[in-house]
Amino acid sequence: MNTHHTPLIESPLLSQINKAPVYLKCENMQQTHSFKARGAWHAINALKNSSNGVITHSSGNHGAALSWAAKSKGIEAHIVVPENAPQSKIENIKRYGGIVHFCGAGLDAREEKMKAIQAQGNQVFIPPYNHEDIIAGQSTCAREIFSEVKNIHTLLVPVGGGGLLSGSAIAAREASPNTKVIGCEPAEADDAYRSFHSGKLEHPGNPTTMADGLRTGLGDITFGYIKSMVNDIYTVTEQDIYNAWAFVIHHLKLIIEPSCAVPFAVWKSKLNHWQGQPVAIIITGGNIDLSNLPPQEDSFNFL
Amino acid sequence: MNTHHTPLIESPLLSQINKAPVYLKCENMQQTHSFKARGAWHAINALKNSSNGVITHSSGNHGAALSWAAKSKGIEAHIVVPENAPQSKIENIKRYGGIVHFCGAGLDAREEKMKAIQAQGNQVFIPPYNHEDIIAGQSTCAREIFSEVKNIHTLLVPVGGGGLLSGSAIAAREASPNTKVIGCEPAEADDAYRSFHSGKLEHPGNPTTMADGLRTGLGDITFGYIKSMVNDIYTVTEQDIYNAWAFVIHHLKLIIEPSCAVPFAVWKSKLNHWQGQPVAIIITGGNIDLSNLPPQEDSFNFL
Repeated sequence: MNTHHTPLIESPLLSQINKAPVYLKCENMQQTHSFKARGAWHAINALKNSSNGVITHSSGNHGAALSWAAKSKGIEAHIVVPENAPQSKIENIKRYGGIVHFCGAGLDAREEKMKAIQAQGNQVFIPPYNHEDIIAGQSTCAREIFSEVKNIHTLLVPVGGGGLLSGSAIAAREASPNTKVIGCEPAEADDAYRSFHSGKLEHPGNPTTMADGLRTGLGDITFGYIKSMVNDIYTVTEQDIYNAWAFVIHHLKLIIEPSCAVPFAVWKSKLNHWQGQPVAIIITGGNIDLSNLPPQEDSFNFL
Repeated sequence: MNTHHTPLIESPLLSQINKAPVYLKCENMQQTHSFKARGAWHAINALKNSSNGVITHSSGNHGAALSWAAKSKGIEAHIVVPENAPQSKIENIKRYGGIVHFCGAGLDAREEKMKAIQAQGNQVFIPPYNHEDIIAGQSTCAREIFSEVKNIHTLLVPVGGGGLLSGSAIAAREASPNTKVIGCEPAEADDAYRSFHSGKLEHPGNPTTMADGLRTGLGDITFGYIKSMVNDIYTVTEQDIYNAWAFVIHHLKLIIEPSCAVPFAVWKSKLNHWQGQPVAIIITGGNIDLSNLPPQEDSFNFL
């Protein structure tokens, strides 16, 4: 099984407000239900020696994606997961055949646990984003968008570790050089915004944003691409993210992770930047516990 | 506000299994989140005298659609709704400005209540499906599909009262005469199946299928179109419907009503009829209470 060429939807409702098409790239319909399958698939296929299996740390989607890609090739995948990761993401990892190892919260705890396992088994580390093969894989998402629609004015991409944003910027520079590529980040986890403006890699801290997929900080490789190729980074508040999330679920009828709501919130808050011009938004994933969705009454605060 | 030209998605996952594209027409992203907006909009615009307002009976989606279309034209809409209709549908009617009147369960109770209100206010009755203007409006959905994709082998359409199925068949005969149009019906509410095979309008009884939008029976006008223009009608069990519903929500990440799961269940159960040929499925609506979605573990029984 290869990764999917996912649907690109034009939302009639958002297009009406944007006064030009708003396209949604549905990576929630991707293999393992997130764009992470693209990077994992590319990295697994680029492996020179896979006999000891692979290992990674991940809040969930990269772990499920690596498990899926590894299993497709008959390779063992070890995934270090923080104990507070959403249950649906942990179950996805197990479903795709990944071996789950729990660790404490925070980046240091994850990396320590991972190194302990690796010391025993000598698995190849496939990092979630700070890796050329991962970035190359993520670039296929924006490439598909540009292959279908030629005149995208602005591409809005969530930024956590920066793998998807780097890949999107690379794809745009090659396939659609006039498209502005904008990173979209929670204000509560604004290391990419700070790094982009200071010119040096800023520490992420331990952010607690509801956009749990975007709590990680940039890496040196992704920051290199973002610094030189991304047009700008905008941040939005937790309230903006929540309102956008509730709106997309109730009015676009798409199941998306809170992280995916971030570019919708940016689209709305900076509407005057692109109103009248075609915009594309990458919906990065759909792995959420459906027992805890926002109520309908909260969906009317967005527009 | 006009009705939306809704997105037509090609599902990569279903296409893989179908060995040819499976297209999903997303009426859950239509105005009022169901295809019913098309018929209501067309009927309201065709009104000769609207000064007394309009009235209808509806399990919910037609009521919301008529309220929306009427409000767009500054007309009052009275909607008779069974007490056991889903709460989200009732709230939609009120949100779009409709005046809700409750009645008991069953077709007779609704019609009695409606006639009592009409005796006072002389509102124009806009029935949910058995009406030429409604059918003409519903036909625009399939027309949009055929305008985008030329070689649809089979179009799968849920059938309750038969308005959408009639409109789809009319559209196919005009715009895509080689396309087979198939009605998809719960076995628990199989009056269309029985009528199609006996050649006379059969009584629906009081069905209790989970596909609550499909509990109504055909009308004489819709039966006339279905008898002469529809290729076949297939039924599926409640378990098939539930499995398909859970699958679409968890794996296609689309919020759909249980009624919309019926054509997915038919697609799966009769796969050998169209495997290797392009299929289109109309997703009729997305108005459900999100507090009661199927758990993820139930989503693996479909494929």
